Amino acid sequence: MQKKKVTLKEIAERTGVSLGTVHRAIYGKSGVSEETRARIMEEVVRTNYQIDEAASVLKRRAKKVVVVLPKAHKEDRFYFRGIWKGIQDAAQNMDQYKIYYDFVESDYPLSQIWRELERVYDEKLDEIDGLITMADSEKANIWIGRFAKRGVFTVLLSSYYDEKSSMVSCIKADHARCGILAAEFMDYGIRKEKGKILTFCGDEHIYSNRVYASNFEEKMKEYGYDLIKVEGFGSDEIEKKSREILQRENIQGIFMCNARNTYCICKLVDELNIDRDFLILGTDVYEELIPYFEKGILNAVICQFHWDQGTQAVLKMHKYLSRGIQEQEDHVMPPVLLMKSNVECFL
Amino acid sequence: MQKKKVTLKEIAERTGVSLGTVHRAIYGKSGVSEETRARIMEEVVRTNYQIDEAASVLKRRAKKVVVVLPKAHKEDRFYFRGIWKGIQDAAQNMDQYKIYYDFVESDYPLSQIWRELERVYDEKLDEIDGLITMADSEKANIWIGRFAKRGVFTVLLSSYYDEKSSMVSCIKADHARCGILAAEFMDYGIRKEKGKILTFCGDEHIYSNRVYASNFEEKMKEYGYDLIKVEGFGSDEIEKKSREILQRENIQGIFMCNARNTYCICKLVDELNIDRDFLILGTDVYEELIPYFEKGILNAVICQFHWDQGTQAVLKMHKYLSRGIQEQEDHVMPPVLLMKSNVECFL
Repeated sequence: MQKKKVTLKEIAERTGVSLGTVHRAIYGKSGVSEETRARIMEEVVRTNYQIDEAASVLKRRAKKVVVVLPKAHKEDRFYFRGIWKGIQDAAQNMDQYKIYYDFVESDYPLSQIWRELERVYDEKLDEIDGLITMADSEKANIWIGRFAKRGVFTVLLSSYYDEKSSMVSCIKADHARCGILAAEFMDYGIRKEKGKILTFCGDEHIYSNRVYASNFEEKMKEYGYDLIKVEGFGSDEIEKKSREILQRENIQGIFMCNARNTYCICKLVDELNIDRDFLILGTDVYEELIPYFEKGILNAVICQFHWDQGTQAVLKMHKYLSRGIQEQEDHVMPPVLLMKSNVECFL
Repeated sequence: MQKKKVTLKEIAERTGVSLGTVHRAIYGKSGVSEETRARIMEEVVRTNYQIDEAASVLKRRAKKVVVVLPKAHKEDRFYFRGIWKGIQDAAQNMDQYKIYYDFVESDYPLSQIWRELERVYDEKLDEIDGLITMADSEKANIWIGRFAKRGVFTVLLSSYYDEKSSMVSCIKADHARCGILAAEFMDYGIRKEKGKILTFCGDEHIYSNRVYASNFEEKMKEYGYDLIKVEGFGSDEIEKKSREILQRENIQGIFMCNARNTYCICKLVDELNIDRDFLILGTDVYEELIPYFEKGILNAVICQFHWDQGTQAVLKMHKYLSRGIQEQEDHVMPPVLLMKSNVECFL
């Protein structure tokens, strides 16, 4: 069963470098250019050379990863609590691989996270090997680019980072598919008489909101529904307008494309206590939604496994820091549907 | 961040054994009774002593695991292809931990798998450290008990094994919850006029079929539906009867609680080409179902992540063989709903 192992010497011959260089590249030591290291690692992977991970951990120096994300409080808790938990659970045993984590739970909201990145860059650049964060604005992208340029391997969550770099890699939900699935589920529940659907499309400056909501809307129009759209992110921005629409219009279904608006609308519908016969479909799963499932207000959520993004980020980081494997391809998480009977399994 | 490490000497003092015994227990060597080893490992876990896994792999001898399951062919392919893939993918890199896998793809069906277990016991007992299989009959259970008694750590998939043993551990779907979720989804799609539901409850001698189907039936009755039940496992047993019922009765929804019947009924409904307005909900996901999703015949499947059972089995085995951690508690996989838009992500 065991693959034939290729020696370091053979790798050196094939790539035209010295044995010492191969050794330095594989065990993550300095003195090898990024390009040469990449070339050697490619050859290593190609020839199925199995690095003896055990031996390599014992030999190499300790590594440090910093995680910079908004603290899971206020309306940020619905989404970020899961992300943080995923990362922290997965990072827990990484010290056995000599990889240590530093968690920066920022007081800045996501739109201002670049300020925290700036501070970390100035204060800690020399001591860190990896960075896990989110890219959400032009300013954040600039700082991420700076880290990458200085050799910090960076994993971005739920981000759309356009610049190609071998040091930056993304993990995200398949937002387009989330939107289409939401439409399919909504239509399955209504089917016969297609009427008005109220849709909370979030903040169109947030790339994930935009992709997700527009895919839902397109599909629903294709099915033959009329859409009423409310823009905004969080209760301050959407509550007043929603209250008016819910009392005025005859709505068949309501859809929310992010965690924050899902909570806000469930709470509102519960408070309004209107005589109603509409379906409600939200996004993401967290304990604050359970009462609304129990009361029959919320029919289902699209689950994007957002905590798993955290786990995957740690695994990607581990692969790079302990074995030198750079996975540049984005890791895309597929969505699933959760209803009252299975939602608690995903808390 | 790093936890304070407790030395082997401290563990020895706390458990009242010699330093050598602690060492032998931790590094999986012989000469320590199961009971003493368990006591030491408990203390090790309790005091957060982090075994240096890297060092331990280098020191210990190679281990061998045998996997005994029906070959993924004929109607067995729908379910067992996923299980086999999960195991084989996860086992692929285990040789770096010096754990080698031997895959026995049996020609016996699940009901006869004990014959293969008997053969493996007679021919290979002395060379194996772990066994992954399924318990489905009294006879299989007897052979599993024999392996466990001889110190072979055994992980059972989708099985209900009643005898308590520290050497046997189960991984299975939450079949009760699968049934309740199926009912919730069916009712969500029909809601207003509750009529007749045709349900394929599988083989009641298969424990998973029985638990799953009875939970669906109970919930549907609670909602107020009438049920027409067809027993049987696979096309030979259910096709003829289904054909008659589908042509005679006015059916609102059809439910199948296993992979094999799901395929068989989709195929039949497609062939009959009846003018219909009913929902179809099946179980498990595999490529042969895709055409029926595309044609709008199949509305959704309950996904039990059956391939993940294979993955989890390998991880459990790894934890035991390389770190001595016995997880006796069953690992239960929660179900999710898949529709046309996301099913392909789970192939």
